[in-house]
Amino acid sequence: MDKTHLGTHISQQYNEELEDIRNRVLTMGGLVEQQLTDALRALSDINAELAEVVITNDYKVNAMEVAIDEESVQILARRQPAASDLRLVMASIKTITDLERIGDEAERIGRMALHFAETGGESKMLLGIQHLGEHVLGMLHNALDAFARMDTEAAVRVARSDIKADRAYESILRELITYMMEDPRSIPHVVDVMWSARALERIGDRAQNISEYVIYLVKGKNVRHTSLDKVESHARGNDEG
Amino acid sequence: MDKTHLGTHISQQYNEELEDIRNRVLTMGGLVEQQLTDALRALSDINAELAEVVITNDYKVNAMEVAIDEESVQILARRQPAASDLRLVMASIKTITDLERIGDEAERIGRMALHFAETGGESKMLLGIQHLGEHVLGMLHNALDAFARMDTEAAVRVARSDIKADRAYESILRELITYMMEDPRSIPHVVDVMWSARALERIGDRAQNISEYVIYLVKGKNVRHTSLDKVESHARGNDEG
Repeated sequence: MDKTHLGTHISQQYNEELEDIRNRVLTMGGLVEQQLTDALRALSDINAELAEVVITNDYKVNAMEVAIDEESVQILARRQPAASDLRLVMASIKTITDLERIGDEAERIGRMALHFAETGGESKMLLGIQHLGEHVLGMLHNALDAFARMDTEAAVRVARSDIKADRAYESILRELITYMMEDPRSIPHVVDVMWSARALERIGDRAQNISEYVIYLVKGKNVRHTSLDKVESHARGNDEG
Repeated sequence: MDKTHLGTHISQQYNEELEDIRNRVLTMGGLVEQQLTDALRALSDINAELAEVVITNDYKVNAMEVAIDEESVQILARRQPAASDLRLVMASIKTITDLERIGDEAERIGRMALHFAETGGESKMLLGIQHLGEHVLGMLHNALDAFARMDTEAAVRVARSDIKADRAYESILRELITYMMEDPRSIPHVVDVMWSARALERIGDRAQNISEYVIYLVKGKNVRHTSLDKVESHARGNDEG
């Protein structure tokens, strides 16, 4: 796509508005990371109190999404950004949608942790899930870091590492099915663990989405539904990839 | 929000571009409806062939999302829409994201149907899920209809009917857990049905999202994370609601 320079506004105020959007996306990202960290700890420690904190705090994530979305649309209306400024606004709007949904998944894990605590689930069912939890928390952190530094190579690494998350998830699922078949009384608890594993797998997908927006932001290429090798080629700036 | 008239472009060409976006969103919606219809039939008839058609056709949904997204961003860059035109473009971008994800869920149901067929699942496990499937298919249809007609009252009805989908989902889940506990050999099959039920529940949420974008489009109010009574009040144009 040719870079158009329609509606370019060179003003200190405008630059500050764009910088503000970027900072607020990262602040929201930090909050969502904290929510996921707490949800995982609530699950591993079977800590009902911490689980309730996560559930209660989800409204903060939602409020940030609405506020940043409104600010972004106002910038579109008032500043008519073009080229890379427009891509920053669009990438921000999409990133906060995924962050909000990651927040929802963290809340779901919190609810599972609460239910698990209340109904006397056993921690040995949670062994595989901690590892997956740490992996996707790392993916989320790295995706936000790639957004902050506009680092497309880091973004590609996040996208690639989702394969590992998917494999870990499949393996947990097989283990949990075996567990249920061997001890049918465990089924209601194991179903909670299954939902938490699925929530983590979805968070990995969403971290991958965020990393794809970073490549769009920097390179102007929409790499959704593109093979990882092509994504990597675009990230390196080779348009023929 | 005050309606601003910055960058208003009165031209036949521009109006056609906006109309084209709207039509393409609805065409994509029709394709996603068809995918969901086929996925549900593949599951109820335990039809592996139809399941494979659904899985294969998901790339069409993805391609439409990418194309409409690019066209929308080009309109933002070239036309600098304001007020209701800007809201149409933003609502379209958000709607196609949800439609693409509904397509993914339909593909997942297709995969479950295929697995179910290959491993000899029994149709009696699928009784509750058909009803839920029809309900969320109706929600999707009505949400797209509300988008086509910019009908906020219809959009509110879609949002309200998600409560019914959530209840049906909870009830199916309880039934499936009982089923597994009574017959542990059924567990691997029932897990497939559980994932399909979850996919349908998520489709209901996404149809609700689309109905919320209709209210945003018509009334300029972001009603995400708002209680249904307030949503209804905004839909009726009472800003104090």
